Amino acid sequence: MRDFATDHSALALNTGSLGHNLDGCGAGWPPEKVIDACAERGFGAITFWRREIGNRGIEIGNRVRAAGMDVCGLARSPFLVGPLAPPSRSEVMDDFHASIDKAADLGATVLTIVVGGIVEGSHSMRESLRQVTEIVAAAVPWASRAGVRLALEPLNPVYGGDRSCLVTVRDAVNICEAINDPAVTMAVDVYHVWWDLSLADELKRAGPERIAGYHLCDWLADTTDVLLDRGMMGDGVADLQSIRRAVEEAGYEGYCEVEIFSANNWWKRDPGEVLDVMVERFRSVC
Amino acid sequence: MRDFATDHSALALNTGSLGHNLDGCGAGWPPEKVIDACAERGFGAITFWRREIGNRGIEIGNRVRAAGMDVCGLARSPFLVGPLAPPSRSEVMDDFHASIDKAADLGATVLTIVVGGIVEGSHSMRESLRQVTEIVAAAVPWASRAGVRLALEPLNPVYGGDRSCLVTVRDAVNICEAINDPAVTMAVDVYHVWWDLSLADELKRAGPERIAGYHLCDWLADTTDVLLDRGMMGDGVADLQSIRRAVEEAGYEGYCEVEIFSANNWWKRDPGEVLDVMVERFRSVC
Repeated sequence: MRDFATDHSALALNTGSLGHNLDGCGAGWPPEKVIDACAERGFGAITFWRREIGNRGIEIGNRVRAAGMDVCGLARSPFLVGPLAPPSRSEVMDDFHASIDKAADLGATVLTIVVGGIVEGSHSMRESLRQVTEIVAAAVPWASRAGVRLALEPLNPVYGGDRSCLVTVRDAVNICEAINDPAVTMAVDVYHVWWDLSLADELKRAGPERIAGYHLCDWLADTTDVLLDRGMMGDGVADLQSIRRAVEEAGYEGYCEVEIFSANNWWKRDPGEVLDVMVERFRSVC
Repeated sequence: MRDFATDHSALALNTGSLGHNLDGCGAGWPPEKVIDACAERGFGAITFWRREIGNRGIEIGNRVRAAGMDVCGLARSPFLVGPLAPPSRSEVMDDFHASIDKAADLGATVLTIVVGGIVEGSHSMRESLRQVTEIVAAAVPWASRAGVRLALEPLNPVYGGDRSCLVTVRDAVNICEAINDPAVTMAVDVYHVWWDLSLADELKRAGPERIAGYHLCDWLADTTDVLLDRGMMGDGVADLQSIRRAVEEAGYEGYCEVEIFSANNWWKRDPGEVLDVMVERFRSVC
């Protein structure tokens, strides 16, 4: 297992941790200021959200690399199925392709996929996952041409209804196996998998080629909001060392990307302070 | 699979569905009124909560049986570990024993166990489950003498921090196997397991002797409160038929107990109407 105590070059920022500037949260830093602040602190990479980069993907990607870092990902695809997805299959595919193109503009090699909830009227997770598999498989040629890997992210089962019918690493590995293309991988997020004692076995089944991202935060014991009350590493109950061991023993050697949605705590703080705490916690508890 | 379309004698009420009379919710019906209303509608059994029966367990149990029904369970044990458990192991055991005695008073053959969250400072689900196993094993002689089966209830992973470090059927079966006593069983609740595609396999592994309860409700796609926004069967996205098939193919033939915590919807309605809807939905969608 890698030792981060004296080297945090594997640390990446998911810009969602600074608040998206949504609903009065976040300090409103433009991408350039985020890039400089990360570079100053020795971060290795940044993952952006589509809403933040507009049509400036190429410019922002170049700026990150000029600062000595990588763009490790783009968040995210549209919801592919379920009540929050675009209304037609063709609109889903159009926006899915657009998100792949946006990742390519940035020079991000990974696009995170949040698959969407249970297909309306189906009452069936299996049927919903079948449709997800079909849609992801249909996007593979576009992704391959763009040089972007698609990373299926299983979400915590609490989101199973509307945001993600994909709720376990097991089911994500199954989709990767069913499509069986190097462009189809998965991302592992502490918030979503911390409770799963089959994690190490399932990640071994996935193998290194199918793990394209590792996202860090913590699960607060008394979580008050399942969307926007994520904890900073060390403030919760997740077994961060064991989870990272499982990810690394499965062969993952990439960035560890901090993604903390925290409307009432971290999003209210100065972004510089938040980044400083990330570095300290990454070195001491992750 | 049993056919409930014309026979709802397997239907049971968990009185929590009528609101506990907490925080202004629930119509304040005393147990006697609940018993009569269930008997009138052909329910087969009732599960009570400790807080509702006080020291009247024997009297209430007899009243249920005189009305032609069973007491199918008591909710519930104290939290055994984690931040919400009584402060010392001896206090946990005392209250655990008291809850077993209360079930025996009622003539309930099953006591539901909600195990409590991650042991403070441990950051470890495995260590927390180890302590749960130790405590449940220690209560087995008391339960056996009382003729009460202990039903470990895995809760939805969203409760993993503070309410239940037991979040999968798989882990519940593992604890049953580790203790390996007929008094140690599990309860399956739609709200907690609806997302788990390994359910049928794990229940087969458990076998009929280790499944002591089946709880019904539905998972609302746009759940607004993970404690108190459960759905009535048919109003959500859970695949109720498939889940019951998994439970029954594993050998379970007992009551199906409706447990809906719904502060802003069902708890605000007339209990008679709620019971009527339960019967109709049980016959049509469960």
